Amino acid sequence: MLNKQTQNELISRGRAFMRGYRDDDPYMEDFESDQDLKLPQPPLVKAPMTADDHRIVLTKDFSELPMLHNLRQLLSSRRSARIYTQEEMTLTQLSFLLWACQGIKSIRGKSYATLRTVPSGGARHPFETYLMVRKVEGLKPGAYHYLPMEHALEFLHDVDEMDTQISDSLCGQSWAAKANVVFYWSMVPYRAEWRYGIYAHRTALMDAGHMGENLYLACTGIGLGCCAIGAFRDDLCNQLFSLNGEDEFMLYVVPVGTVRSCDKADEQAFYKFVEDEGL
Amino acid sequence: MLNKQTQNELISRGRAFMRGYRDDDPYMEDFESDQDLKLPQPPLVKAPMTADDHRIVLTKDFSELPMLHNLRQLLSSRRSARIYTQEEMTLTQLSFLLWACQGIKSIRGKSYATLRTVPSGGARHPFETYLMVRKVEGLKPGAYHYLPMEHALEFLHDVDEMDTQISDSLCGQSWAAKANVVFYWSMVPYRAEWRYGIYAHRTALMDAGHMGENLYLACTGIGLGCCAIGAFRDDLCNQLFSLNGEDEFMLYVVPVGTVRSCDKADEQAFYKFVEDEGL
Repeated sequence: MLNKQTQNELISRGRAFMRGYRDDDPYMEDFESDQDLKLPQPPLVKAPMTADDHRIVLTKDFSELPMLHNLRQLLSSRRSARIYTQEEMTLTQLSFLLWACQGIKSIRGKSYATLRTVPSGGARHPFETYLMVRKVEGLKPGAYHYLPMEHALEFLHDVDEMDTQISDSLCGQSWAAKANVVFYWSMVPYRAEWRYGIYAHRTALMDAGHMGENLYLACTGIGLGCCAIGAFRDDLCNQLFSLNGEDEFMLYVVPVGTVRSCDKADEQAFYKFVEDEGL
Repeated sequence: MLNKQTQNELISRGRAFMRGYRDDDPYMEDFESDQDLKLPQPPLVKAPMTADDHRIVLTKDFSELPMLHNLRQLLSSRRSARIYTQEEMTLTQLSFLLWACQGIKSIRGKSYATLRTVPSGGARHPFETYLMVRKVEGLKPGAYHYLPMEHALEFLHDVDEMDTQISDSLCGQSWAAKANVVFYWSMVPYRAEWRYGIYAHRTALMDAGHMGENLYLACTGIGLGCCAIGAFRDDLCNQLFSLNGEDEFMLYVVPVGTVRSCDKADEQAFYKFVEDEGL
Protein backbone atom coordinates (compact mmCIF):
# COMPACT_ATOMS: atom_id res chain seq x y z
CA MET A 1 0.00 0.00 0.00
CA LEU A 2 1.09 3.56 -0.72
CA ASN A 3 2.22 5.38 2.38
CA LYS A 4 -0.29 7.90 3.62
CA GLN A 5 1.93 10.91 3.10
CA THR A 6 2.65 10.18 -0.57
CA GLN A 7 -1.00 9.49 -1.10
CA ASN A 8 -2.05 12.76 0.50
CA GLU A 9 0.48 14.68 -1.53
CA LEU A 10 -0.77 13.15 -4.77
CA ILE A 11 -4.37 13.83 -3.82
CA SER A 12 -3.50 17.45 -3.06
CA ARG A 13 -1.74 17.78 -6.37
CA GLY A 14 -4.71 16.28 -8.19
CA ARG A 15 -7.13 18.65 -6.47
CA ALA A 16 -4.88 21.63 -7.17
CA PHE A 17 -4.88 20.72 -10.84
CA MET A 18 -8.67 20.93 -10.94
CA ARG A 19 -9.02 24.34 -9.35
CA GLY A 20 -9.70 27.69 -10.99
CA TYR A 21 -7.36 30.68 -10.95
CA ARG A 22 -5.98 31.68 -7.58
CA ASP A 23 -4.46 34.85 -6.24
CA ASP A 24 -1.62 32.85 -4.75
CA ASP A 25 -0.70 31.32 -8.13
CA PRO A 26 2.98 32.28 -8.45
CA TYR A 27 2.94 32.00 -12.24
CA MET A 28 -0.14 33.88 -13.35
CA GLU A 29 1.22 37.40 -13.31
CA ASP A 30 4.22 36.57 -15.47
CA PHE A 31 2.41 34.23 -17.78
CA GLU A 32 2.32 34.98 -21.49
CA SER A 33 1.08 32.43 -23.97
CA ASP A 34 2.75 31.77 -27.30
CA GLN A 35 -0.31 33.42 -28.83
CA ASP A 36 0.40 36.56 -26.73
CA LEU A 37 3.97 36.44 -28.03
CA LYS A 38 2.66 36.26 -31.62
CA LEU A 39 4.32 32.92 -32.26
CA PRO A 40 2.85 31.06 -35.24
CA GLN A 41 -0.27 29.08 -34.61
CA PRO A 42 -0.05 25.29 -34.98
CA PRO A 43 -2.25 23.62 -37.63
CA LEU A 44 -5.96 23.36 -36.80
CA VAL A 45 -5.97 19.65 -37.61
CA LYS A 46 -3.32 16.98 -38.06
CA ALA A 47 -2.22 16.49 -41.65
CA PRO A 48 -3.28 13.23 -43.32
CA MET A 49 -0.92 10.43 -42.40
CA THR A 50 -1.23 8.51 -45.69
CA ALA A 51 -1.39 9.05 -49.45
CA ASP A 52 -4.60 10.31 -51.06
CA ASP A 53 -5.72 6.91 -52.30
CA HIS A 54 -6.43 5.68 -48.79
CA ARG A 55 -9.36 8.08 -48.23
CA ILE A 56 -12.95 7.13 -47.60
CA VAL A 57 -15.11 10.22 -48.02
CA LEU A 58 -18.06 10.14 -45.63
CA THR A 59 -21.57 11.41 -46.11
CA LYS A 60 -23.21 14.18 -44.12
CA ASP A 61 -26.62 13.08 -45.31
CA PHE A 62 -28.01 11.30 -42.28
CA SER A 63 -31.62 11.27 -43.45
CA GLU A 64 -31.60 7.49 -43.92
CA LEU A 65 -30.74 6.89 -40.26
CA PRO A 66 -33.61 6.01 -37.93
CA MET A 67 -33.06 8.52 -35.16
CA LEU A 68 -34.56 9.10 -31.74
CA HIS A 69 -35.33 12.80 -31.76
CA ASN A 70 -37.09 13.36 -28.45
CA LEU A 71 -34.58 15.30 -26.35
CA ARG A 72 -36.01 14.34 -22.99
CA GLN A 73 -36.08 10.69 -23.96
CA LEU A 74 -32.60 10.92 -25.44
CA LEU A 75 -31.17 12.24 -22.18
CA SER A 76 -33.04 9.79 -20.02
CA SER A 77 -32.32 6.71 -22.14
CA ARG A 78 -28.57 7.35 -22.46
CA ARG A 79 -26.70 4.63 -20.61
CA SER A 80 -23.35 2.86 -20.64
CA ALA A 81 -23.46 -0.27 -22.79
CA ARG A 82 -20.74 -2.92 -22.56
CA ILE A 83 -22.55 -5.80 -24.30
CA TYR A 84 -22.51 -5.63 -28.08
CA THR A 85 -24.41 -7.91 -30.44
CA GLN A 86 -21.67 -7.85 -33.09
CA GLU A 87 -24.09 -7.24 -35.94
CA GLU A 88 -22.80 -5.00 -38.69
CA MET A 89 -22.87 -1.23 -38.24
CA THR A 90 -23.37 0.95 -41.29
CA LEU A 91 -20.85 3.46 -42.59
CA THR A 92 -23.51 6.16 -42.37
CA GLN A 93 -23.93 5.41 -38.67
CA LEU A 94 -20.18 5.77 -38.17
CA SER A 95 -20.18 8.94 -40.24
CA PHE A 96 -22.88 10.42 -38.02
CA LEU A 97 -20.93 9.60 -34.87
CA LEU A 98 -17.75 11.20 -36.22
CA TRP A 99 -19.64 14.30 -37.31
CA ALA A 100 -21.49 14.53 -33.99
CA CYS A 101 -18.25 14.46 -32.00
CA GLN A 102 -15.77 16.40 -34.10
CA GLY A 103 -17.56 17.59 -37.25
CA ILE A 104 -16.44 21.02 -38.48
CA LYS A 105 -19.25 23.51 -39.05
CA SER A 106 -17.17 26.51 -40.11
CA ILE A 107 -13.80 28.22 -39.83
CA ARG A 108 -13.32 31.37 -37.75
CA GLY A 109 -11.16 33.97 -39.50
CA LYS A 110 -8.90 32.85 -42.32
CA SER A 111 -7.62 29.90 -40.37
CA TYR A 112 -7.86 30.94 -36.73
CA ALA A 113 -10.14 28.23 -35.40
CA THR A 114 -12.52 25.46 -36.35
CA LEU A 115 -16.06 25.67 -35.05
CA ARG A 116 -17.31 22.19 -34.43
CA THR A 117 -20.32 20.25 -33.21
CA VAL A 118 -18.81 20.37 -29.70
CA PRO A 119 -17.57 23.28 -27.61
CA SER A 120 -13.85 23.57 -26.84
CA GLY A 121 -12.05 26.25 -24.82
CA GLY A 122 -10.96 29.01 -27.20
CA ALA A 123 -12.20 26.75 -30.02
CA ARG A 124 -8.79 25.06 -29.90
CA HIS A 125 -10.17 21.54 -30.49
CA PRO A 126 -6.88 19.89 -29.57
CA PHE A 127 -8.01 16.35 -30.36
CA GLU A 128 -7.55 13.81 -33.13
CA THR A 129 -9.86 10.88 -33.71
CA TYR A 130 -8.52 7.39 -34.40
CA LEU A 131 -10.56 4.25 -34.86
CA MET A 132 -10.05 0.54 -34.51
CA VAL A 133 -12.65 -0.69 -36.95
CA ARG A 134 -13.82 -4.26 -36.37
CA LYS A 135 -17.19 -4.52 -38.04
CA VAL A 136 -18.42 -1.61 -40.11
CA GLU A 137 -20.11 -2.08 -43.47
CA GLY A 138 -17.81 -1.21 -46.36
CA LEU A 139 -14.66 -0.75 -44.24
CA LYS A 140 -12.00 -3.38 -43.96
CA PRO A 141 -10.96 -3.99 -40.36
CA GLY A 142 -7.95 -1.99 -39.25
CA ALA A 143 -6.69 1.30 -37.90
CA TYR A 144 -8.16 4.55 -39.25
CA HIS A 145 -7.71 8.30 -38.75
CA TYR A 146 -10.54 10.81 -39.12
CA LEU A 147 -9.93 13.89 -41.29
CA PRO A 148 -12.44 16.45 -40.03
CA MET A 149 -11.72 19.07 -42.73
CA GLU A 150 -12.77 16.64 -45.45
CA HIS A 151 -15.15 14.61 -43.26
CA ALA A 152 -13.26 11.56 -44.47
CA LEU A 153 -11.46 8.58 -43.00
CA GLU A 154 -8.00 7.48 -43.99
CA PHE A 155 -7.03 3.84 -43.65
CA LEU A 156 -3.78 3.60 -41.71
CA HIS A 157 -2.92 -0.09 -41.53
CA ASP A 158 -4.08 -3.61 -40.82
CA VAL A 159 -3.94 -4.74 -37.22
CA ASP A 160 -2.85 -8.25 -36.26
CA GLU A 161 -4.81 -9.87 -33.46
CA MET A 162 -6.92 -6.77 -33.12
CA ASP A 163 -9.12 -8.10 -30.33
CA THR A 164 -6.12 -8.82 -28.12
CA GLN A 165 -4.57 -5.48 -28.91
CA ILE A 166 -7.76 -3.59 -28.08
CA SER A 167 -8.21 -5.50 -24.85
CA ASP A 168 -4.56 -5.08 -23.81
CA SER A 169 -4.62 -1.36 -24.58
CA LEU A 170 -7.62 -1.03 -22.26
CA CYS A 171 -6.07 -2.77 -19.25
CA GLY A 172 -7.64 -6.10 -20.13
CA GLN A 173 -11.23 -4.94 -20.55
CA SER A 174 -12.07 -7.66 -23.04
CA TRP A 175 -15.72 -6.63 -23.47
CA ALA A 176 -14.40 -3.64 -25.44
CA ALA A 177 -12.92 -5.95 -28.07
CA LYS A 178 -16.45 -6.94 -29.09
CA ALA A 179 -17.30 -3.41 -30.16
CA ASN A 180 -17.90 -2.66 -33.83
CA VAL A 181 -15.51 0.23 -33.61
CA VAL A 182 -13.38 1.70 -30.84
CA PHE A 183 -12.89 5.46 -30.76
CA TYR A 184 -9.40 6.41 -29.57
CA TRP A 185 -9.12 10.16 -29.06
CA SER A 186 -5.69 11.70 -28.78
CA MET A 187 -4.58 15.04 -27.44
CA VAL A 188 -2.31 17.30 -29.51
CA PRO A 189 -1.27 19.44 -26.55
CA TYR A 190 0.39 22.35 -28.30
CA ARG A 191 -2.82 23.16 -30.16
CA ALA A 192 -4.27 24.22 -26.79
CA GLU A 193 -0.98 25.30 -25.16
CA TRP A 194 -0.30 27.83 -27.92
CA ARG A 195 -3.24 29.82 -26.50
CA TYR A 196 -3.42 28.71 -22.86
CA GLY A 197 0.14 27.58 -22.09
CA ILE A 198 0.53 26.17 -18.59
CA TYR A 199 -3.25 26.53 -18.06
CA ALA A 200 -4.26 24.46 -21.10
CA HIS A 201 -4.66 21.01 -19.62
CA ARG A 202 -7.52 21.37 -17.20
CA THR A 203 -9.77 22.88 -19.85
CA ALA A 204 -8.78 20.30 -22.44
CA LEU A 205 -9.88 17.45 -20.19
CA MET A 206 -13.29 19.06 -19.85
CA ASP A 207 -13.38 19.52 -23.60
CA ALA A 208 -12.75 15.79 -24.00
CA GLY A 209 -15.82 15.29 -21.83
CA HIS A 210 -17.90 17.54 -24.09
CA MET A 211 -16.90 15.39 -27.04
CA GLY A 212 -17.49 12.13 -25.17
CA GLU A 213 -20.99 13.17 -24.17
CA ASN A 214 -21.85 13.91 -27.79
CA LEU A 215 -20.74 10.37 -28.64
CA TYR A 216 -22.99 8.97 -25.91
CA LEU A 217 -25.97 10.97 -27.14
CA ALA A 218 -25.31 10.34 -30.82
CA CYS A 219 -25.10 6.59 -30.11
CA THR A 220 -28.31 6.74 -28.11
CA GLY A 221 -29.96 8.68 -30.91
CA ILE A 222 -29.23 6.05 -33.56
CA GLY A 223 -29.71 2.97 -31.40
CA LEU A 224 -26.06 2.08 -30.76
CA GLY A 225 -24.34 1.65 -27.42
CA CYS A 226 -21.04 2.85 -25.98
CA CYS A 227 -19.14 3.07 -22.73
CA ALA A 228 -16.41 5.60 -21.98
CA ILE A 229 -13.20 4.12 -20.60
CA GLY A 230 -10.95 5.74 -18.05
CA ALA A 231 -8.54 2.83 -17.61
CA PHE A 232 -6.27 2.53 -20.61
CA ARG A 233 -2.56 2.00 -21.10
CA ASP A 234 -0.94 5.16 -22.37
CA ASP A 235 1.99 3.44 -24.11
CA LEU A 236 -0.04 0.66 -25.79
CA CYS A 237 -2.70 3.05 -27.05
CA ASN A 238 -0.04 5.37 -28.46
CA GLN A 239 1.66 2.49 -30.23
CA LEU A 240 -1.56 1.41 -31.92
CA PHE A 241 -1.57 4.63 -33.93
CA SER A 242 2.16 5.51 -33.88
CA LEU A 243 1.76 8.53 -31.59
CA ASN A 244 5.03 9.62 -30.03
CA GLY A 245 3.44 10.19 -26.61
CA GLU A 246 4.74 13.72 -26.26
CA ASP A 247 3.45 15.93 -29.12
CA GLU A 248 0.43 13.67 -29.22
CA PHE A 249 -0.83 11.09 -26.77
CA MET A 250 -3.96 9.09 -26.12
CA LEU A 251 -6.58 10.77 -23.98
CA TYR A 252 -9.96 9.08 -24.06
CA VAL A 253 -11.22 5.76 -25.41
CA VAL A 254 -14.82 4.76 -26.16
CA PRO A 255 -15.93 1.43 -27.68
CA VAL A 256 -19.13 1.62 -29.73
CA GLY A 257 -21.29 -1.28 -30.80
CA THR A 258 -24.65 -2.57 -31.86
CA VAL A 259 -26.87 -3.31 -28.87
CA ARG A 260 -30.28 -4.75 -28.08
CA SER A 261 -32.44 -3.69 -25.19
CA CYS A 262 -32.88 -7.24 -23.85
CA ASP A 263 -29.17 -7.27 -22.90
CA LYS A 264 -29.71 -4.41 -20.49
CA ALA A 265 -30.35 -6.80 -17.62
CA ASP A 266 -27.10 -8.66 -18.31
CA GLU A 267 -25.21 -5.38 -18.05
CA GLN A 268 -25.87 -5.68 -14.33
CA ALA A 269 -23.25 -8.43 -14.21
CA PHE A 270 -20.62 -5.68 -14.39
CA TYR A 271 -21.90 -4.48 -11.00
CA LYS A 272 -22.34 -7.84 -9.32
CA PHE A 273 -20.10 -6.70 -6.45
CA VAL A 274 -22.75 -4.17 -5.46
CA GLU A 275 -25.21 -6.96 -4.78
CA ASP A 276 -22.59 -9.35 -3.36
CA GLU A 277 -21.35 -6.79 -0.89
CA GLY A 278 -24.85 -5.53 -0.04
CA LEU A 279 -23.89 -1.95 -0.97
CA MET B 1 7.56 36.51 -18.48
CA LEU B 2 7.91 33.06 -16.92
CA ASN B 3 11.32 31.60 -17.47
CA LYS B 4 11.39 28.88 -20.08
CA GLN B 5 12.46 26.13 -17.72
CA THR B 6 9.62 26.71 -15.25
CA GLN B 7 7.20 26.92 -18.13
CA ASN B 8 8.41 23.65 -19.64
CA GLU B 9 8.22 21.91 -16.29
CA LEU B 10 4.65 23.09 -15.76
CA ILE B 11 3.67 22.04 -19.27
CA SER B 12 5.19 18.61 -18.70
CA ARG B 13 3.32 18.27 -15.44
CA GLY B 14 0.06 19.28 -17.13
CA ARG B 15 0.56 16.79 -19.91
CA ALA B 16 1.48 14.05 -17.45
CA PHE B 17 -1.75 14.71 -15.58
CA MET B 18 -3.75 14.04 -18.75
CA ARG B 19 -2.19 10.71 -19.65
CA GLY B 20 -3.55 7.21 -19.15
CA TYR B 21 -1.97 4.52 -16.99
CA ARG B 22 1.74 3.93 -17.50
CA ASP B 23 4.02 1.03 -16.72
CA ASP B 24 6.51 3.44 -15.21
CA ASP B 25 3.95 4.86 -12.75
CA PRO B 26 5.69 4.31 -9.40
CA TYR B 27 2.40 4.33 -7.48
CA MET B 28 0.10 2.03 -9.37
CA GLU B 29 1.24 -1.29 -8.02
CA ASP B 30 0.85 -0.25 -4.40
CA PHE B 31 -2.31 1.69 -4.87
CA GLU B 32 -5.43 0.70 -2.98
CA SER B 33 -8.47 2.91 -2.88
CA ASP B 34 -10.52 3.55 0.23
CA GLN B 35 -13.20 1.46 -1.45
CA ASP B 36 -10.69 -1.43 -1.75
CA LEU B 37 -9.95 -0.98 1.95
CA LYS B 38 -13.70 -1.20 2.71
CA LEU B 39 -13.77 2.26 4.23
CA PRO B 40 -17.27 3.74 4.45
CA GLN B 41 -18.59 5.38 1.33
CA PRO B 42 -19.25 9.13 1.46
CA PRO B 43 -22.82 10.36 0.87
CA LEU B 44 -24.04 10.26 -2.73
CA VAL B 45 -25.17 13.87 -2.56
CA LYS B 46 -24.51 16.78 -0.26
CA ALA B 47 -27.05 17.17 2.54
CA PRO B 48 -29.39 20.16 2.30
CA MET B 49 -27.72 23.28 3.64
CA THR B 50 -30.90 24.92 4.96
CA ALA B 51 -34.10 24.14 6.84
CA ASP B 52 -36.98 22.40 5.06
CA ASP B 53 -39.00 25.55 4.53
CA HIS B 54 -36.54 26.92 1.99
CA ARG B 55 -37.29 24.24 -0.63
CA ILE B 56 -38.72 24.80 -4.08
CA VAL B 57 -39.83 21.45 -5.50
CA LEU B 58 -39.32 21.34 -9.26
CA THR B 59 -41.40 19.64 -11.91
CA LYS B 60 -40.21 16.83 -14.16
CA ASP B 61 -43.11 17.44 -16.50
CA PHE B 62 -41.47 19.24 -19.38
CA SER B 63 -44.32 18.78 -21.83
CA GLU B 64 -45.15 22.50 -21.81
CA LEU B 65 -41.67 23.44 -23.04
CA PRO B 66 -41.27 24.12 -26.75
CA MET B 67 -38.34 21.88 -27.57
CA LEU B 68 -36.14 21.36 -30.61
CA HIS B 69 -36.18 17.62 -31.06
CA ASN B 70 -34.15 17.08 -34.23
CA LEU B 71 -30.86 15.57 -33.06
CA ARG B 72 -28.84 16.57 -36.09
CA GLN B 73 -30.13 20.13 -35.87
CA LEU B 74 -29.57 20.20 -32.13
CA LEU B 75 -25.90 19.27 -32.53
CA SER B 76 -25.32 21.63 -35.41
CA SER B 77 -27.12 24.63 -33.90
CA ARG B 78 -25.40 24.42 -30.51
CA ARG B 79 -23.16 27.45 -30.06
CA SER B 80 -21.67 29.58 -27.31
CA ALA B 81 -23.92 32.53 -26.48
CA ARG B 82 -22.65 35.50 -24.47
CA ILE B 83 -25.38 38.02 -25.29
CA TYR B 84 -28.55 37.61 -23.26
CA THR B 85 -31.80 39.51 -23.78
CA GLN B 86 -32.65 39.58 -20.07
CA GLU B 87 -36.22 38.51 -20.58
CA GLU B 88 -37.65 36.27 -17.91
CA MET B 89 -36.85 32.56 -17.96
CA THR B 90 -39.44 30.12 -16.64
CA LEU B 91 -38.97 27.84 -13.65
CA THR B 92 -39.82 24.87 -15.87
CA GLN B 93 -36.99 25.81 -18.19
CA LEU B 94 -34.58 25.92 -15.25
CA SER B 95 -35.97 22.65 -13.96
CA PHE B 96 -35.31 21.02 -17.32
CA LEU B 97 -31.71 22.25 -17.35
CA LEU B 98 -31.04 20.95 -13.86
CA TRP B 99 -32.58 17.60 -14.68
CA ALA B 100 -30.68 17.37 -17.99
CA CYS B 101 -27.33 17.94 -16.27
CA GLN B 102 -27.63 16.17 -12.93
CA GLY B 103 -31.06 14.56 -12.75
CA ILE B 104 -31.14 11.23 -10.92
CA LYS B 105 -32.78 8.39 -12.84
CA SER B 106 -32.26 5.59 -10.32
CA ILE B 107 -30.10 4.30 -7.50
CA ARG B 108 -27.73 1.37 -7.96
CA GLY B 109 -27.78 -1.07 -5.05
CA LYS B 110 -29.14 0.13 -1.73
CA SER B 111 -27.17 3.32 -1.85
CA TYR B 112 -24.08 2.51 -3.88
CA ALA B 113 -24.44 5.02 -6.70
CA THR B 114 -26.80 7.43 -8.40
CA LEU B 115 -27.49 6.89 -12.08
CA ARG B 116 -28.02 10.24 -13.70
CA THR B 117 -28.76 11.89 -17.01
CA VAL B 118 -24.98 12.17 -17.57
CA PRO B 119 -22.23 9.58 -17.41
CA SER B 120 -19.64 9.77 -14.64
CA GLY B 121 -16.68 7.45 -14.00
CA GLY B 122 -17.81 4.68 -11.65
CA ALA B 123 -21.12 6.59 -11.37
CA ARG B 124 -19.45 8.68 -8.65
CA HIS B 125 -21.07 11.97 -9.73
CA PRO B 126 -18.79 14.05 -7.53
CA PHE B 127 -20.46 17.37 -8.31
CA GLU B 128 -22.87 19.76 -6.63
CA THR B 129 -24.90 22.36 -8.48
CA TYR B 130 -25.20 25.93 -7.21
CA LEU B 131 -27.01 28.78 -8.91
CA MET B 132 -26.87 32.53 -8.91
CA VAL B 133 -30.43 33.29 -9.91
CA ARG B 134 -30.95 36.73 -11.46
CA LYS B 135 -34.14 36.48 -13.45
CA VAL B 136 -36.19 33.32 -13.22
CA GLU B 137 -39.98 33.37 -12.92
CA GLY B 138 -41.14 32.58 -9.40
CA LEU B 139 -37.68 32.63 -7.80
CA LYS B 140 -36.38 35.56 -5.86
CA PRO B 141 -32.85 36.53 -6.91
CA GLY B 142 -30.12 34.97 -4.81
CA ALA B 143 -27.94 31.93 -4.23
CA TYR B 144 -29.46 28.46 -4.55
CA HIS B 145 -28.37 24.83 -4.19
CA TYR B 146 -29.83 21.99 -6.24
CA LEU B 147 -31.02 18.87 -4.37
CA PRO B 148 -30.94 16.12 -6.99
CA MET B 149 -32.56 13.42 -4.80
CA GLU B 150 -35.69 15.54 -4.43
CA HIS B 151 -35.29 17.42 -7.73
CA ALA B 152 -35.70 20.59 -5.70
CA LEU B 153 -33.88 23.84 -5.12
CA GLU B 154 -33.06 25.26 -1.73
CA PHE B 155 -32.72 29.00 -1.31
CA LEU B 156 -29.41 29.76 0.40
CA HIS B 157 -29.25 33.52 0.80
CA ASP B 158 -29.66 36.93 -0.80
CA VAL B 159 -26.65 38.29 -2.65
CA ASP B 160 -25.69 41.95 -2.46
CA GLU B 161 -24.52 43.52 -5.70
CA MET B 162 -24.95 40.23 -7.46
CA ASP B 163 -23.86 41.47 -10.88
CA THR B 164 -20.53 42.67 -9.53
CA GLN B 165 -20.01 39.50 -7.58
CA ILE B 166 -20.72 37.31 -10.60
CA SER B 167 -18.43 39.36 -12.79
CA ASP B 168 -15.63 39.44 -10.20
CA SER B 169 -15.88 35.71 -9.60
CA LEU B 170 -15.40 35.18 -13.35
CA CYS B 171 -12.25 37.27 -13.73
CA GLY B 172 -14.20 40.35 -14.82
CA GLN B 173 -16.26 38.73 -17.57
CA SER B 174 -19.13 41.18 -17.17
CA TRP B 175 -21.26 39.70 -19.96
CA ALA B 176 -21.90 36.76 -17.63
CA ALA B 177 -23.64 39.06 -15.14
CA LYS B 178 -26.44 39.55 -17.66
CA ALA B 179 -27.38 35.88 -17.60
CA ASN B 180 -30.72 34.83 -16.14
CA VAL B 181 -28.96 32.26 -14.02
CA VAL B 182 -25.34 31.23 -13.58
CA PHE B 183 -24.57 27.56 -12.96
CA TYR B 184 -21.66 27.10 -10.54
CA TRP B 185 -20.63 23.47 -10.34
CA SER B 186 -18.46 22.36 -7.46
CA MET B 187 -16.36 19.26 -7.00
CA VAL B 188 -16.69 17.15 -3.85
CA PRO B 189 -13.40 15.35 -4.39
CA TYR B 190 -13.69 12.55 -1.85
CA ARG B 191 -16.82 11.24 -3.57
CA ALA B 192 -14.58 10.24 -6.50
CA GLU B 193 -11.38 9.68 -4.48
CA TRP B 194 -13.07 7.06 -2.29
CA ARG B 195 -13.14 4.83 -5.39
CA TYR B 196 -10.28 6.15 -7.53
CA GLY B 197 -7.92 7.73 -4.99
CA ILE B 198 -4.93 9.41 -6.56
CA TYR B 199 -6.38 8.66 -10.03
CA ALA B 200 -9.72 10.39 -9.45
CA HIS B 201 -9.08 13.86 -10.78
CA ARG B 202 -8.43 13.34 -14.46
CA THR B 203 -11.66 11.40 -14.89
CA ALA B 204 -13.67 13.89 -12.85
CA LEU B 205 -12.65 16.73 -15.15
CA MET B 206 -13.93 14.76 -18.11
CA ASP B 207 -17.11 14.05 -16.20
CA ALA B 208 -17.56 17.79 -15.71
CA GLY B 209 -17.34 18.07 -19.48
CA HIS B 210 -20.08 15.46 -19.91
CA MET B 211 -22.32 17.51 -17.65
CA GLY B 212 -21.43 20.78 -19.35
CA GLU B 213 -22.24 19.42 -22.77
CA ASN B 214 -25.66 18.35 -21.56
CA LEU B 215 -26.24 21.92 -20.41
CA TYR B 216 -25.24 23.24 -23.85
CA LEU B 217 -27.59 20.82 -25.60
CA ALA B 218 -30.44 21.28 -23.15
CA CYS B 219 -30.17 25.06 -23.59
CA THR B 220 -30.11 24.68 -27.37
CA GLY B 221 -33.10 22.37 -27.16
CA ILE B 222 -35.29 24.88 -25.33
CA GLY B 223 -34.06 28.02 -27.07
CA LEU B 224 -31.75 29.37 -24.37
CA GLY B 225 -28.07 30.21 -24.69
CA CYS B 226 -25.01 29.52 -22.55
CA CYS B 227 -21.25 29.72 -22.63
CA ALA B 228 -18.91 27.59 -20.52
CA ILE B 229 -16.26 29.53 -18.63
CA GLY B 230 -12.73 28.35 -17.95
CA ALA B 231 -11.47 31.54 -16.33
CA PHE B 232 -12.88 31.91 -12.84
CA ARG B 233 -11.47 32.85 -9.47
CA ASP B 234 -11.34 29.81 -7.22
CA ASP B 235 -11.51 31.75 -3.93
CA LEU B 236 -14.30 34.16 -4.95
CA CYS B 237 -16.47 31.39 -6.38
CA ASN B 238 -16.02 29.30 -3.25
CA GLN B 239 -16.98 32.26 -1.06
CA LEU B 240 -20.20 32.83 -2.99
CA PHE B 241 -21.54 29.51 -1.73
CA SER B 242 -19.48 29.08 1.46
CA LEU B 243 -17.38 26.19 0.13
CA ASN B 244 -14.25 25.58 2.14
CA GLY B 245 -12.09 25.06 -0.95
CA GLU B 246 -10.72 21.74 0.21
CA ASP B 247 -13.56 19.22 0.75
CA GLU B 248 -15.46 21.08 -1.90
CA PHE B 249 -14.32 23.67 -4.43
CA MET B 250 -15.61 25.34 -7.56
CA LEU B 251 -14.95 23.51 -10.80
CA TYR B 252 -16.96 24.77 -13.73
CA VAL B 253 -19.14 27.81 -14.32
CA VAL B 254 -21.75 28.35 -17.04
CA PRO B 255 -24.00 31.41 -17.41
CA VAL B 256 -27.36 30.71 -19.05
CA GLY B 257 -29.72 33.26 -20.51
CA THR B 258 -32.51 34.08 -22.90
CA VAL B 259 -31.20 34.75 -26.40
CA ARG B 260 -32.44 35.82 -29.81
CA SER B 261 -30.98 34.71 -33.08
CA CYS B 262 -30.49 38.26 -34.38
CA ASP B 263 -27.78 38.79 -31.74
CA LYS B 264 -25.67 36.04 -33.27
CA ALA B 265 -23.84 38.54 -35.48
CA ASP B 266 -22.97 40.72 -32.48
CA GLU B 267 -21.39 37.70 -30.79
CA GLN B 268 -18.59 38.16 -33.32
CA ALA B 269 -17.47 41.20 -31.34
CA PHE B 270 -15.94 38.78 -28.84
CA TYR B 271 -13.59 37.67 -31.61
CA LYS B 272 -12.78 41.05 -33.08
CA PHE B 273 -9.06 40.37 -32.61
CA VAL B 274 -9.28 37.62 -35.22
CA GLU B 275 -10.28 40.13 -37.85
CA ASP B 276 -8.01 42.90 -36.52
CA GLU B 277 -4.99 40.69 -36.60
CA GLY B 278 -5.91 39.07 -39.92
CA LEU B 279 -5.79 35.58 -38.38
